[in-house]
Amino acid sequence: MGFEDQLTAIVGAAHVDVADAIRDDDTHDEALDGHPVRPRAVVRPGSTDEVAAIVRAAGVEGVPLTPRGSGTGLSGACTPVAGGVVVSFERMNRILEIDTANHVAVVEPGLTLAELDAALAPHHLIYPVFPGEQSASLGGNVATNAGGMRAVKYGVTRHHVLGIEAVLGTGEVISAGGKFVKSTSGYDLTQMVIGSEGTLALVTRATLRLHPRPEFHTTLLAPFPTIGAIASSVPPIVASGIGPVMVEYIDLVSMAGITANAGIDLGIPDDIKDVALAYLVIVLESHDATRLEEDAEALAEQIAGLGALDVYVLPDQAGAQLISARERAFWASKANGADDIVDVVVPRASIPAFLDAVSERAAATSSLVIGCGHAGDGNVHLSVWQPDADVRHTLLHDLMTSGLALGGAISGEHGIGTQKAGFLVELEDPVKLDLMRRIKAAFDPYGILNPGTIFDPAGSAGTAGSVGDPVTTAAHR
Amino acid sequence: MGFEDQLTAIVGAAHVDVADAIRDDDTHDEALDGHPVRPRAVVRPGSTDEVAAIVRAAGVEGVPLTPRGSGTGLSGACTPVAGGVVVSFERMNRILEIDTANHVAVVEPGLTLAELDAALAPHHLIYPVFPGEQSASLGGNVATNAGGMRAVKYGVTRHHVLGIEAVLGTGEVISAGGKFVKSTSGYDLTQMVIGSEGTLALVTRATLRLHPRPEFHTTLLAPFPTIGAIASSVPPIVASGIGPVMVEYIDLVSMAGITANAGIDLGIPDDIKDVALAYLVIVLESHDATRLEEDAEALAEQIAGLGALDVYVLPDQAGAQLISARERAFWASKANGADDIVDVVVPRASIPAFLDAVSERAAATSSLVIGCGHAGDGNVHLSVWQPDADVRHTLLHDLMTSGLALGGAISGEHGIGTQKAGFLVELEDPVKLDLMRRIKAAFDPYGILNPGTIFDPAGSAGTAGSVGDPVTTAAHR
Repeated sequence: MGFEDQLTAIVGAAHVDVADAIRDDDTHDEALDGHPVRPRAVVRPGSTDEVAAIVRAAGVEGVPLTPRGSGTGLSGACTPVAGGVVVSFERMNRILEIDTANHVAVVEPGLTLAELDAALAPHHLIYPVFPGEQSASLGGNVATNAGGMRAVKYGVTRHHVLGIEAVLGTGEVISAGGKFVKSTSGYDLTQMVIGSEGTLALVTRATLRLHPRPEFHTTLLAPFPTIGAIASSVPPIVASGIGPVMVEYIDLVSMAGITANAGIDLGIPDDIKDVALAYLVIVLESHDATRLEEDAEALAEQIAGLGALDVYVLPDQAGAQLISARERAFWASKANGADDIVDVVVPRASIPAFLDAVSERAAATSSLVIGCGHAGDGNVHLSVWQPDADVRHTLLHDLMTSGLALGGAISGEHGIGTQKAGFLVELEDPVKLDLMRRIKAAFDPYGILNPGTIFDPAGSAGTAGSVGDPVTTAAHR
Repeated sequence: MGFEDQLTAIVGAAHVDVADAIRDDDTHDEALDGHPVRPRAVVRPGSTDEVAAIVRAAGVEGVPLTPRGSGTGLSGACTPVAGGVVVSFERMNRILEIDTANHVAVVEPGLTLAELDAALAPHHLIYPVFPGEQSASLGGNVATNAGGMRAVKYGVTRHHVLGIEAVLGTGEVISAGGKFVKSTSGYDLTQMVIGSEGTLALVTRATLRLHPRPEFHTTLLAPFPTIGAIASSVPPIVASGIGPVMVEYIDLVSMAGITANAGIDLGIPDDIKDVALAYLVIVLESHDATRLEEDAEALAEQIAGLGALDVYVLPDQAGAQLISARERAFWASKANGADDIVDVVVPRASIPAFLDAVSERAAATSSLVIGCGHAGDGNVHLSVWQPDADVRHTLLHDLMTSGLALGGAISGEHGIGTQKAGFLVELEDPVKLDLMRRIKAAFDPYGILNPGTIFDPAGSAGTAGSVGDPVTTAAHR
């Protein structure tokens, strides 16, 4: 029986697409510099058992599997492999449980953040990871360890996924973690799978930690003369204990683009605009409106003393508009023809040094590189306009190298995917890469789970991730 | 050259103990039912390079290595292996950096929590993981993913270790993570090593996330008629958004023991004492004394409405005394002849069901089982009095099985160590155990790092963890 027939036997003909029936959407994600690949088939399992059966069959045949949630990724991690099969989780999108006594939700991977949030709001609970794209799936969030603007208060996906059910590359199903924060009972397989971009296991269920949903929010906007001054203001703001939920910076050009794209006017006087090179945006939240107002006033005073040109407490609607526009910064860049994006993370105090290096490399290569980022946690989002692919490659390489030299990492939240796999292999310690390949082999001995993503870019040969070769991990010394 | 001579060549004769020079302290940790083992040698490296040289030499000779911090563990994870060598980190105890701009500290593994806290206080910063034993080392905390009473607000060690330097079982040194919270740049090796109890790598450096140090604390004590009523009160307390830093319960007998042992009188009237079967202890903290007082009042009112027999806001000193006494509950049990301890974690709402099972098994085996625990996060600490080793083994087995049946895990924070390795192997999914052994082999192909801990108890044969056998991870199907 051919592999497509095996898939049909597992999930039913209605849930297998081949040839022309394969939708264009399933051939790529949202990575700017991505190259769509038509897979051999797209299969839409409806249960964990079906996922396990697909993986077992693929293991026997040596067929690469590319897991796919909503396809909103920005690094090409769900780009299919030629001759491979896309495993789409769109049918596995149920909320299995909202447990208000333990403050957890149990969900399937195809569920979107928007759907989850709508279901939690009536319980006055929130899943606080907002990576900026509410149509993203929870499975995709787990795969990339999604972050977003609220990470400065709440941390990232890794801090909120308490347990998973997942299918290993062997087709075996494991259940790890549970409705608890604390456990030291063998290796934490949940944490190992989070952020592994579909290369270690296919997640079929996740147990998520929920938080009380704050009722009140307020947004402060402060133009600054330099990004360095913004970076210097962050430690005292965090040290104040006010605990902001967002601490963002937006550079001059990005602010213009973001507000123009969203059609909002923040009413900043021209004389301030003329000298502001960057903007600090802070959001506070609280369960108590009076305290929130007090905190906003105290913070505004503090920021004024930290070098801000002015400080505005935005009216509710303007604040929400600005945050929403900031979340759509990627789309604004895309609409304006950006060629690629970078989301290097550095220690937050090193943001100015990193941006100095960025400016220098941008000027040297006649590229436009602008952005905004998470000032509270050092995650810098840059949009790059440089049409020449080779020049762009060198530029991205240099930006990543600069970030690494400052003690940072290549990607803060978008992931390595297929787009940056070449950079990781080039820039990462070979000892760690070898270890990661041995770990990959421990979870996925046949190398069928999302090959080409993270550290084995298309075209590389002889790695533990090659498809179809059972591998060993005897160490080299 | 003999192995002891190789060790001497690496670290110098002053830092290698053999034969009678080996201190009794180095033969065991604080596990109640532990059995001291005299190692072949104790070596005290002074640098990462020395640790790496020791591991390389041990790999060649097939000598098991047992890492040791302060020896305050409660599960026997640093019990030496006969014929093996203890690697003591007592000389590697420096604070390498307190970075106030990024709010991180970089430390060596032998540093104690008390030493770190004393150094951070002048900076108004705190490393918020307080497992209850301030002489514990940071390396030990990383190895066990230490938790403690503040986990309900701050999470556990896993949430605060941003990066590590570590020596793999191959003797290779890796550096993972850094001074940032967000990263998706290959597998998170930091998270993999945390909680692995010294079986995957020897941690030689850790980058720790710090928080602003709250100035004000207040303690609420509420006697309740049942533990069930306490458990039911937790979700509304957490949902209130007040964000307590501790939410503990203490059972009747433990409260008597804890207070008697510490010589404190909380002044609870006899008529309340007569009907209180358990006590809820909540600690709030804030940077603002007025708000703290308001919160304490609001919370006291809320707790009174949730079934408490009474609510006391303790004077500062009494509150600190009670918390300190609670932290020493283990020592109170030990002083009173407890035979063993258990720290099962269950979903917090399942604490009453778990304790019902505990009572039933205790009665059926004529054992005394009492305790206290982290009501906010489901981590139950039980002291067990049952002198017969076989009966005790069956009792512990049944308690763990009950916890697992409720969706919990064997250990919330003490770890599996050598003491509970037999239980893990018996009770855990064999598919996960096989996966963990393959992961172990990826980090430690010669099986020299802390063998016997976690999943390969002494006496088990033919596992990937056996000492001296290079292993493969070809999957079984």
